[in-house]
Order: sequence, then C-alpha cells, then structure tokens
Amino acid sequence: MIKISFPDGSIREYEKGVTALEVAKSISEGLARKVLAANVNGQVRDATRPITEDATLKLLTWTDGEGKSTFWHSSAHLMAEAVESLFPGAKFWVGPAVDNGFYYDIDLGGRAIAEEDLRKLETKMAELARKNDVYQRKEIGKDDALKYFAEKGDEYKLDLLQNLKDGEITFYTQGDFTDLCRGPHIPNTGFIKAIKLTNIAGAYWKGDERNKQLTRIYGVSFPSQKELDEYLVLLEEAKKRDHRKLGKELGIFTFDDEVGPGLPLWMPNGAIVIEELEKLAKESEERAGYKRVVTPHIAKESLYLTSGHLPYYQDSMYPPMELEGVKYYLKSMNCPHHHKIFAAEQKSYKDLPYRLAEYGTCYRYEQSGELFGLMRVRCLHMNDAHIYCTKEQFYEEFKAVNEMYLKYFKIFGIDKYVMRLSLHDPAKLGKKYIDEPELWKETEALVRDVLIRTETPFVEVEDEAAFYGPKIDVQIWSTIGREFTLATNQVDFAQGRRFKLEFTNKDNHPETPLIIHRAPLGTHERFIGFLLEHYAGKFPVWLAPLQVKILPISDKFLDYAQNLLQSLKNADIRAAVDDRNEKIGKKIRDTELSRTPYMLVIGEKEMSESRVSVRRQGKGDLGTKSIDEFVSELKAEIRERVSE
Amino acid sequence: MIKISFPDGSIREYEKGVTALEVAKSISEGLARKVLAANVNGQVRDATRPITEDATLKLLTWTDGEGKSTFWHSSAHLMAEAVESLFPGAKFWVGPAVDNGFYYDIDLGGRAIAEEDLRKLETKMAELARKNDVYQRKEIGKDDALKYFAEKGDEYKLDLLQNLKDGEITFYTQGDFTDLCRGPHIPNTGFIKAIKLTNIAGAYWKGDERNKQLTRIYGVSFPSQKELDEYLVLLEEAKKRDHRKLGKELGIFTFDDEVGPGLPLWMPNGAIVIEELEKLAKESEERAGYKRVVTPHIAKESLYLTSGHLPYYQDSMYPPMELEGVKYYLKSMNCPHHHKIFAAEQKSYKDLPYRLAEYGTCYRYEQSGELFGLMRVRCLHMNDAHIYCTKEQFYEEFKAVNEMYLKYFKIFGIDKYVMRLSLHDPAKLGKKYIDEPELWKETEALVRDVLIRTETPFVEVEDEAAFYGPKIDVQIWSTIGREFTLATNQVDFAQGRRFKLEFTNKDNHPETPLIIHRAPLGTHERFIGFLLEHYAGKFPVWLAPLQVKILPISDKFLDYAQNLLQSLKNADIRAAVDDRNEKIGKKIRDTELSRTPYMLVIGEKEMSESRVSVRRQGKGDLGTKSIDEFVSELKAEIRERVSE
Repeated sequence: MIKISFPDGSIREYEKGVTALEVAKSISEGLARKVLAANVNGQVRDATRPITEDATLKLLTWTDGEGKSTFWHSSAHLMAEAVESLFPGAKFWVGPAVDNGFYYDIDLGGRAIAEEDLRKLETKMAELARKNDVYQRKEIGKDDALKYFAEKGDEYKLDLLQNLKDGEITFYTQGDFTDLCRGPHIPNTGFIKAIKLTNIAGAYWKGDERNKQLTRIYGVSFPSQKELDEYLVLLEEAKKRDHRKLGKELGIFTFDDEVGPGLPLWMPNGAIVIEELEKLAKESEERAGYKRVVTPHIAKESLYLTSGHLPYYQDSMYPPMELEGVKYYLKSMNCPHHHKIFAAEQKSYKDLPYRLAEYGTCYRYEQSGELFGLMRVRCLHMNDAHIYCTKEQFYEEFKAVNEMYLKYFKIFGIDKYVMRLSLHDPAKLGKKYIDEPELWKETEALVRDVLIRTETPFVEVEDEAAFYGPKIDVQIWSTIGREFTLATNQVDFAQGRRFKLEFTNKDNHPETPLIIHRAPLGTHERFIGFLLEHYAGKFPVWLAPLQVKILPISDKFLDYAQNLLQSLKNADIRAAVDDRNEKIGKKIRDTELSRTPYMLVIGEKEMSESRVSVRRQGKGDLGTKSIDEFVSELKAEIRERVSE
Repeated sequence: MIKISFPDGSIREYEKGVTALEVAKSISEGLARKVLAANVNGQVRDATRPITEDATLKLLTWTDGEGKSTFWHSSAHLMAEAVESLFPGAKFWVGPAVDNGFYYDIDLGGRAIAEEDLRKLETKMAELARKNDVYQRKEIGKDDALKYFAEKGDEYKLDLLQNLKDGEITFYTQGDFTDLCRGPHIPNTGFIKAIKLTNIAGAYWKGDERNKQLTRIYGVSFPSQKELDEYLVLLEEAKKRDHRKLGKELGIFTFDDEVGPGLPLWMPNGAIVIEELEKLAKESEERAGYKRVVTPHIAKESLYLTSGHLPYYQDSMYPPMELEGVKYYLKSMNCPHHHKIFAAEQKSYKDLPYRLAEYGTCYRYEQSGELFGLMRVRCLHMNDAHIYCTKEQFYEEFKAVNEMYLKYFKIFGIDKYVMRLSLHDPAKLGKKYIDEPELWKETEALVRDVLIRTETPFVEVEDEAAFYGPKIDVQIWSTIGREFTLATNQVDFAQGRRFKLEFTNKDNHPETPLIIHRAPLGTHERFIGFLLEHYAGKFPVWLAPLQVKILPISDKFLDYAQNLLQSLKNADIRAAVDDRNEKIGKKIRDTELSRTPYMLVIGEKEMSESRVSVRRQGKGDLGTKSIDEFVSELKAEIRERVSE
C-alpha cells in the first residue's frame, strides 16, 4: 500500500500502482469524468499513469491552468491526426498549448490550406474525438524512435530527436496518430467536446526566416459546446471592444511611423481622459498626504549604477546618449529620482511618512514584435509614488495604499480582481533575496494581515518576491472577463540603503526608511487601454471627452443651442452643438455612435419653456428637464464619478 | 560740404571733416556733454573722428546699448592705466565691455591682488578720470606696433598683433597708458564719474587651462554717482532675490550630481507652483478654444530630418540613442509631434483654427559652463501651443495670442515689457528667408497692426526674423528692473509644407495652414526663476506653496487649530499648523521668514469666539475675523489670482 496526500491535508492509502484516475473514481464517478491530468509530487503527469510510491496528489480539471493546458495540448495532437488524414504525408514540427488554445506548425508539402479546410478539419476532429481513443504513452529507445520517423520521412521529428537522450524519449498514440511527445495528455479524446480552429498563419521553422515557412494552425477546444459558445461571444465582444479600434474611432491616441513604434501620441480626446485620471489621482493623493514632485526624464549613468538598474535592468532600457563624456539614460522608473528628492533635505522621524507622488513618464525598451497597441508600449505615464516610512508606520501606510486600490476599483466598476502576494523563499536568503530574515517575516505578515483584514481577495505565491521585499501584483478583469495585470505594489528594504537614505530617529540616530513603491492606476497607456475595452468606449460621464451634445431640431434653434452651450461651459461641462444641417434622427444616430453620454434635443417646445429633452447614450429618452435641473444632476454625476 | 542724415529723417549740411561731437554741439551744448560715441553709416566710431563724406549719423549716449558699451570699454582702459601705475610691469591681455560693466585680464607677474587693492585702484581711477585725458586714436604700422610692445616686454599684445593685418592697426592712448585697440572710445576720461570694481577672478589665457592663469578684474562705471548708487542697491536686492538662493530656502527645486547638470528636480513646493501655473494655462487655453495633447519625449531621426532640426539645430540637441538600427532623439521642441497629431485625422476648413496645447518637456543641450540655476537649463517644461489657421483667420488668432500675453502680464504684475518684432530682409528672400514675398508683407503688417491696435509697446528689428516667418521676442522686467527674455511668438509658413499638412478649403482644394508657435509663459524653469526674483520669494497667495499657517499660542489650542486646519483644507486652501512647543513670537518670526502669506494666530479669545487673528506676511496684524469671513475672502483672493 502507498499513502496519497491530498491538497486538503488528508491522507488515504491505496494499492501500489494505482492511477490518479482510479483515485478520482474512488472519490466519485463525477469527479473522475472531469479529471484531465494529475499533479504528482509537484509534477504534472497523465492521470492514467500508475503511482508507485507515497505521493502528494492534486487532481487537475478544467478549472486548473495545468488541466486546461494539458487539454489543449491533447487537442493539438487530435488536430494533427485530422490533418494527417486530410493531408496525407504532412510533417509535424511542434504543437504546444498556448494562452488561449493551441497550435501546431505543419509542413503540408506545398499544399495550400484555406478557411474552408479549417471547417473540414473541425468536423474530422469531432468525429475522431467521439471515438474516445485513449492517449497511449509509450517509452521508446532512441534508435527505435529514429527508425520510426525515418520510415515516416518526417525530418522535423528527426531533428527534435537529435537533442533528446536515450531513455527519456516517449511516444504518445491516439487512434492512428503517433507523436514524439513528453506529455502529459488527457485520458482519451472523448473529453474534447467542442472545437474551433481560429486562424492560419505562416511560421518559419525554428523562428528563423532563412528556414522554410511552415503552416501554423491555431485552435481552441472545450469540454462542452456551451463553453465554446461563450468563448465565441466573448471573442466577438472583445473584437468590438478592441482598444486599438476604439482608440482610433474616438480620437484617443495615434501612432506615427516617424515618431516611432510603441510611442503613442495622445490626441485631444485622449488628453482629456488623461487629465481626468490625473485629477482623480491628485485628489486622492492630496487627501492621503502625498506631496507631488516633477523630475526630469533622464539621468546620468551613475544614478542607475547606484540604483542597480545598470546592468541588471539594462535590457529593458533605451541605449545611452553620450554627452561631454558622460552617459545619460532615459529613466525606466521614477524611484531613483524620487530618492534624490528625499535626500535633498535633511529628514527626521517627524518628516515621516514622507510620500512623493508623480505621474512620471518612463521609457522602456520592448522588442518591436512585442509591442501591442497601448498594452505593450515603450513610453509609460505612470501613476507612481514612493512612501518612505518607519517600520512602525508600515502597516498603516500599506493599508492606506491598499484602500486606495479598492477605492479606485469601485470608481471604475472593477468587480473582479485578485492580489497576488509574492513571498520570499527562506532557503534563498542572501542569494535571491536580501538577507534580512526578520524584516521579511515582519513585512510579509503585515502585508498579509492588511489583505485579510480588508477582505481583499488574494493568493500567495512562494519564491516570487522582488529581491528587495515582498510584492503584490494586481490582476483585474474587464466587464467581458478579460484579465489585465494592472500594477504592482512593492515593499523595498534595499534601495534606501543603496541610496544611503536616512532619517534621524527618536533616539537621534540615523536610520534607513522602508520604501513602498505603488502605482494603483498603473500607467495611462495600459489603464486607458483597459478602460476602452471595459467600457466598450462608453466612458462614464466624468471621463467622457465630450459629455453633452446639443442637437437642435433645425437651424431655428441654433441661438438657443449656443446659449445653452455657454451655460454648460460655464458649469465646466464639456459640451458641443451639432450645428449641421441634418435631420434630428441622423444627429441622434451619429451622437449615439460617437458614444457621447448625453444628448439634449431642442425644438420649439423646449425653447419656449427653457427646457431640454434629455437622451442617454444607449438608453434612450429620459424626458424633459429644466436646464438648471439637468446641469445640477449632471454636475453631481461628474463630481461623484458615477460609473454608469 | 557734406550731408548728414539724422534718425528722425532730417538732413543737415556740415563742412567736410566735421566730428560727431561738433555736430552735437551745433545742436546743443547739453547734448554734446552726453555724447559717448557715434554710429556713422551703421558703424560705431569715436565721436571725435572726422566725417569726410555724406553719412547717416546717430549720436550715442548712455541710454544706447552701444554708447554704454563704449563707456565701459573706455573704463577698462582707465582701469589698466591705474593697474599699471600701482603694479608696474603688469601685462595686459584683453579688456572688453560685458553685459554689466567691463573686465581686463592681466598678468600681474606673480603679485597677488586683494579686495583692498580694488579700493586703491578705484581711487586711482577716479583721480585719473578727473584729469579729463583724451582717448587719443593713432593708426600705426605693424612693425612699429610690434616694436612698441617688444620694448614694453608685453608678450600678450605681441600675440594679439600676430593676427592683425598691417594697415588695420590702431593704438589708443589716454594719459600715460597706451593700448592696442580697435576702439571706439569715449571723448575723454572725464565722462567717467563713478567707478566700482566688483570682483577678482582667475582666467586661463585664451580660456585654455594648460595656459598661464591671468587675473581678471571686473568693474562697472557710470556717468554719475547717483547711477552707481542705484546700481549697488539693485545688486544688493538682486543678491537677496537670487532665484538659486530662494529656490533652496523655499524648497522649490534642487540639482543632483548623479542626475546631471541643468536637470532640475522640482521639490514638493516647486511642484505646487508648477501645478498652479499649469492650471492657469489650461484655464486660459480652454477658454480660448485650445485642445490639449500629450506627446512622447523622443522620436526617430526621420522626424527631425523632416522638421529640419537635423542637421540645422543638432548642436542644441542631445545626442541620439540607437535602437534596432534607428536613431532616436530627445525632442528639443514640441512642434513636430503636434504636427503629427494635426495630420493624424483628415482636416477641413471647418476644423480650423485648430489649436493644440501641451506643457511639453523638451531637452536641449547647453554647454556645462553656460548652465545657470533655472535660467539656463537642459530640461524645459514649455507652455507650448501651435495654432493651425487660414490666412483669413491669422489676424484674429494672433491678436488673441497677444491678448493672452497681456492678460498674463497683468496677473503677474509685470508692468514693464516690450515686444521685439523681428522682420525679414526682402533682399535675402530665397536665401535667409523663405521666398514668399507676399506672405511676408501680409503677416508682418498683420502682426504690426495687432501690436499697434492693442497698444502693446514694441520695437521693430529688420533682418532678424526666423527663416519661416516673422517672430516676436518678449522681454519683461522684474520689479527690481532686471530684464528677462520670456518667450517667442512666431509665425511659420514653412513647417506646414515640410510636414505636408493640409486641410480641404471651401473650394474643396487642399491648402497648407499657417502655423503660429506660441509660449506666453515660456518655460517653467525660466518663468519660475523670474517669479522667484520678481516676488523676492513672496508668492501671491494663489501661487504660494503654503497659503496659511495656523499658529496656536499654546498647546491648549491645538485641537481648535486642527479643526481650523480641516476647514481650510475642505476649502482647498493649502494650510498647516505650527504645533511646535515654541513661543508665539518665534512662531510668527519663523513663518514670516518662510514667506507664508497668511498667519492665523489663535488663543483663548479667538477660540471662545470662533474667530481668528489674521496676520499678513510683511504687513502685520489685520485684526480678527470669523472663520467663514476669512475663508471666503481668501478664496476670492485665490480665485482672482490677486498679485498683492
């Protein structure tokens, strides 16, 4: 008998050689139908492989990332089987699972593949899946493996085999298809209930453009048709909400070849959104006792040697400019500049906590191929701040920062979020982590305590802290359920010392402050990109570049419209008049399309009664109101930053 | 007889060989006593040199820049004479007039010179001046000149002579001192009535540190003692108002060696001033129909090739960063980025005037030696905007810009200012100036017309326009009378074409817009530097980093003070409590020194009556007020940006 330990801490005895699938069945048949793979002693394996000694076991299902990727990797094999049956003689390079599905790179021997072939492949895959073929694992000697693929005439697999050691090679077979593969795989093809092949692309063998171009087929698959349907709806919605499309339509940002990739130019409407976000940040930070600073975008090499950015972070930095024999770098982070401001004047414990905030613009090098709209850029306007505090002040400061995050989530209607608390590994103190065992324990406990007490959802991850302290990565989800990494919130024991930052403590001794790095609104680039998708371009009134459009029914009412416009402007409302010679129906349609939150339709009746007919974008007619009433309601909606 | 034309257009006849001094005498003896030199046919010469042919003549007095510099250059010779008499054997390099006086670089043969020597030299100079010695001009052959200084043993003058051509060499002699000099000089030493030697410094011969170090003596001189006295008062005041000293005392900005020279770090108090200035600019620009944009700080080389910054402006730019085979430059101006935003969307005449504003941060290379506090920096936060308009719209647009300047001058209490209108030279069309004779005439006339109609003081300068259009340089004077160049306001015919900017005109044809570049508040760096001096650090309330300090008479009133603080903060007033355990007298003195505009003294009586005793910095007690009364008066003072 062997002992199996489960994640809940329970331990049960099974016969030696039991499989994870059998263990699942011993618990419930329902569970067994969901098991895709198993994590045995920290290693992901087929659920059908015998377990021969005492082990920890986690059964992996669709809700586990590792379960999902096993499912998709098996789907890639299934697709390969279908390809081989429809395109005999096809040769296969690699077919991994990716973030949202899987792909396989295939040499079709010069045959072209079209959209309709994908539909045929989907049908074939569904047919093969229904056969419930088992994914059969087989250990094989290197010579036999080479012989198999030599006979098959697949030079790609032969190339892969070159780098594998005899004794470590396995084949997986389902139905008529055999692949060289490390595994793991799901128990059988029957798990795959719904399939969508999404895209065809060219891919150079080994990513080298001097090599032959292979055909890459992308797909995604699910354990039920319902999940695929939901996914396709999301995909469609995401397309409509694509921040690049919306950003162009709404005049938010643009790129220009002569300016350079990854360097967005913020157009007038984008600048308004930026201004409103900064106003929010400044207000919150002012109330929370932050002081603002303004720092240059460059500094000498020596600053980044002191901070440690050079050479450790150099790959993410722009190359230097050499001036009068000195190298200058664009800043990739604001902290070193802030530290210099902390150091510029003598500090005592009475000056702490000392909180410096700046919407600082940083420049980071990302490879051209990695750039993506506002999501991956080279210029970042960061909602940055650094808090210098004593150990005693740390808990309250960290709590206040956390509360600021939560306050922002509420304002932006971000209902789903999770904080990922990255901890150190005590075994790596002095190597991967700064050697301050007590400070680590203390601050990690304090951070955890803040998260628990404020009922903030969080997960803990060991051995992923920054080398200078524990950190929190914040993940948020947009209304359509897409995940974004927003910002990090870090504790820092190290930089204070590197920069020789000091304050005089109550005992009149010099002491190094703890530093909190925080950026709750992340960068304008990523956050506005997120908001465009989150709101589908329909910004809440306080953020909307144009808040009110006045739509006179005919030219007769233009004067009244202009007077109205002036009243709105005097109340600091962003408004405009649609003075085109168009039918009111068209004016309404166009304004709806431009996603302006409020429309004021004015005609004879409205003018004579000094009233306005109010329409809300996407919601239709709200009836008539007096101008004062409308203005004061709108002002309240703006002031309170109502999300919808 | 020869004809002499005067600046007022009149022409008078004189005998051939008449001197400017004699011409002056023919007008009035009073005038003659003031004539320092003469501008004859555009060339500055001794007032005592004969005029031998028809000429235009401008008599130069102390109020002319050229008169003043002649006076100071002659004073340098006078100082040299005094040095030679007190330090026999001294040798002389060069002794020019500078912005505020003169200096002479002298080899004292190893003798040290001290502060008390300056006093002795001043006395000697006054004594020599009273002799009314004539500055005698003498043309001399090169051989004779070489012989003279060889005999005198002055290797410095011999070195200077190397580079001069025979036939172009002149000596000037006054009293016992003869110098190699191109001139011109004032008629005699008697004009110099008041002298102050201000400073001694070391200066390497020819500015090369491998050469011998000479002694540089600085001085300043005046035609009356009264003017010297006024100057010394100004100097003393300027020292107290030095923006570098005030900037440090008030926590406005700092520099750091590791960040780099010319790159100010704006401290919390400076960031508040910046924020208030930007708020003012945004308000004014919003009202004037500008749209705001935000652009990156770098761009590819090709952008600056299109704009013409490369290679023409390259010396003032930071060197490039090379990334993925492309050169990137820090922007030295915002225009190219704005042009790209103009071009990002199709424009019609209905979109014009299109006004783009940004407090853009530019980087310019200034040599280390040229850097000076905030006045000469490498990082410039510019109150920039570009207006794209039709020719028909130009007048109104330019007028509106001019009015914005005047509005700002009023807000900042700048009573003395002058606009310097730089015009083209028709002879240089197609060479120094873009070849658009009609556009030049038209826009110059329009600009002039705006200045005249708005009664803006201005001077016209020929042949100093930008190559792409007429420009205005704005000169302002601080309260203590120091001159600052604030900003330029330019018309631009060229960039529109270089960037292929177009709008569809009423006839449905593409047309290139005119562009106005403007920056009424200049750069934060220079403008805040100016304001520090202008206000002697006593910012008006709306700009003051801390607006109100609450001074409880004892700890008993701390709670009341904190409540009061909260009321002020709720009203968006920047306030703080002096909660130190100090006597009220000391609290008041310290707050006066920190230049906080308002102090609220609170004790028993104030607390029991819910009132505050108000003190104004520099003005003393203003009596007691209710809290509401104080807050509403202060809010009005802030809202209206009262200058004092």
